[in-house]
Amino acid sequence: MNEQNRTEIATLGEFGLIHRLTDEIKPVNESTHYGVGDDCAILSYPAEREILVTTDMLMEGVHFDLTYMPLKHLGYKAAMVNLSDIYAMNGTPRQLTVSLALSKRFCIEDVEDLYDGIRLACEQHGVDIVGGDTTSSLTGLAISITCIGEARKEDIVYRNGARETDLICVSGDLGAAYMGLQLLEREKLVFKGQHEVQPDFAGKEYLLERQLKPEARRDIIIALAKAGIKPTAMIDVSDGLSSELLHICTQSNVGCRIYEEHLPIDYQTAIMAEELNMNVTTCALNGGEDYELLFTVPISDHEKVSQLEGIKLIGHITKADLRCGLITRDGQEFELKAQGWNPLREEK
Amino acid sequence: MNEQNRTEIATLGEFGLIHRLTDEIKPVNESTHYGVGDDCAILSYPAEREILVTTDMLMEGVHFDLTYMPLKHLGYKAAMVNLSDIYAMNGTPRQLTVSLALSKRFCIEDVEDLYDGIRLACEQHGVDIVGGDTTSSLTGLAISITCIGEARKEDIVYRNGARETDLICVSGDLGAAYMGLQLLEREKLVFKGQHEVQPDFAGKEYLLERQLKPEARRDIIIALAKAGIKPTAMIDVSDGLSSELLHICTQSNVGCRIYEEHLPIDYQTAIMAEELNMNVTTCALNGGEDYELLFTVPISDHEKVSQLEGIKLIGHITKADLRCGLITRDGQEFELKAQGWNPLREEK
Repeated sequence: MNEQNRTEIATLGEFGLIHRLTDEIKPVNESTHYGVGDDCAILSYPAEREILVTTDMLMEGVHFDLTYMPLKHLGYKAAMVNLSDIYAMNGTPRQLTVSLALSKRFCIEDVEDLYDGIRLACEQHGVDIVGGDTTSSLTGLAISITCIGEARKEDIVYRNGARETDLICVSGDLGAAYMGLQLLEREKLVFKGQHEVQPDFAGKEYLLERQLKPEARRDIIIALAKAGIKPTAMIDVSDGLSSELLHICTQSNVGCRIYEEHLPIDYQTAIMAEELNMNVTTCALNGGEDYELLFTVPISDHEKVSQLEGIKLIGHITKADLRCGLITRDGQEFELKAQGWNPLREEK
Repeated sequence: MNEQNRTEIATLGEFGLIHRLTDEIKPVNESTHYGVGDDCAILSYPAEREILVTTDMLMEGVHFDLTYMPLKHLGYKAAMVNLSDIYAMNGTPRQLTVSLALSKRFCIEDVEDLYDGIRLACEQHGVDIVGGDTTSSLTGLAISITCIGEARKEDIVYRNGARETDLICVSGDLGAAYMGLQLLEREKLVFKGQHEVQPDFAGKEYLLERQLKPEARRDIIIALAKAGIKPTAMIDVSDGLSSELLHICTQSNVGCRIYEEHLPIDYQTAIMAEELNMNVTTCALNGGEDYELLFTVPISDHEKVSQLEGIKLIGHITKADLRCGLITRDGQEFELKAQGWNPLREEK
């Protein structure tokens, strides 16, 4: 937090702060008719467009740790996780509302940093900030973002459309964001012990980037559309591959087989897992926060999807009674379980 | 909170809890195409409808105190404050998303109570719960609700349309919710001292109701439409009459005069103010949480609006350079200031 240039929020009050944060926002979408400044924002979509709505809440100490998460990155990430949900429906994000609850330890410059990150994410994805709420909290920071997007009805991809023999695909790579978190947690402990020690992030930049600056995969949505591929089911990987794949299979009433050897894992992720004596496959399955797209396509799209860059085939859909399994490198089969991020489940 | 019948949230986890809370929700609106269960909710509105979006965040210890706020009432109120914002645009609320962050002291039965209140408010106003986020918090309860509604373009009423000579109207009465809060705070202190003392709420039921169970004024919106009156500007009274009137005047670039003798104040509010040695006019001006509608109409609508039940004319709009003033019973004039609820402003 900024110690030198610190202006107390109380000097502006709620409305002054909102004015300062949103004054320069110029909507870029035709569907945004009226943004910040009245009781509601006003949007307008053509009748043939479906409207997508998603919302996410991030709580300090649960979803983020400000000792190593810069506020600008936090804002960027808070926006991205919402954009990612719109892409996961095969839609286009258009508007976003931002609600913040701030304790007294945050100053105006802090909130501006946070907003800078949100704005950057919005600019990159052509999204308008149209409203929100800014209030105080007794302890910590709470961020609640709602994102609104659009899609043509025939383009929407649900979680429940996977069919037997469909191919299971995932974009990018898995487990790196989780390894980034482990790395940051480790360096936080080191810091606590010895103040002279500098964090050792050399060669691990990718892991940090994946944790601190995740990107919603619009590029994949565009690439699929260009290739004429419409997934049968899709979800974004926020809680871990296993958990998301189980959502698709449960809601589609199918089973699946995925192959350990086909899971996309970055070199840095593998190295870090080894350093920490962790099983890298477990990290890829349950790590979470990858914000990659997990989707299924008909087997007839095999050739088309194989040619796309940054997409890996990791398995196939089966009948429901075969349940969900991982085939390991040595040919063993394990049932997939949702052991990913679940803030309301007791730690085991 | 329920002590006897207490099921830990951890026994269900996030998805189990969401399932339990939302399983029986059946959408009632044509515009709700798909509710809870995928990455996004899916809505669809006719092209000639504008879409209204509003969001509010309520934090424990700042916006509510669970020592005297039953969770069901809290849920009801959290939904109502959002519905009220849609009505304040002269719109109709249709969908709502609910994000909750819960600390470990809340059990499943607590969350069900909270949800019961949200559902009740939604049922009364024909609104569908279409999504949300349920997560954990380190301390306290955070509630973030986003409401989506609709209006015909020509029906929307902004804050910025008030014109010189317009009449200023307000529905219901003012200051009672604030008096209800004072009453509850007083009884809380009494409780802390002596456990045998029963709270003395006799004859003050209306104040409690206004604080614990506010109603969004759909009836006023309907009455205005029936009478063929379209307000020139409108806002709901959440932060206090002064603050809201200043929003209308600033955004409309006008001034105003309101008359102390015309402010609608309930008998119980006046009695309670006297008991507490407070100026009842100050309570009506700055109390907040009334969730009444404050609006302006052309002077040509004087007769029509005068005949409506539950609406009081409290003053008129002037040129901007006359600023905003209150004329007291003895003919003195005071400038209106926004001294209402402002969680980010330093206490004075």
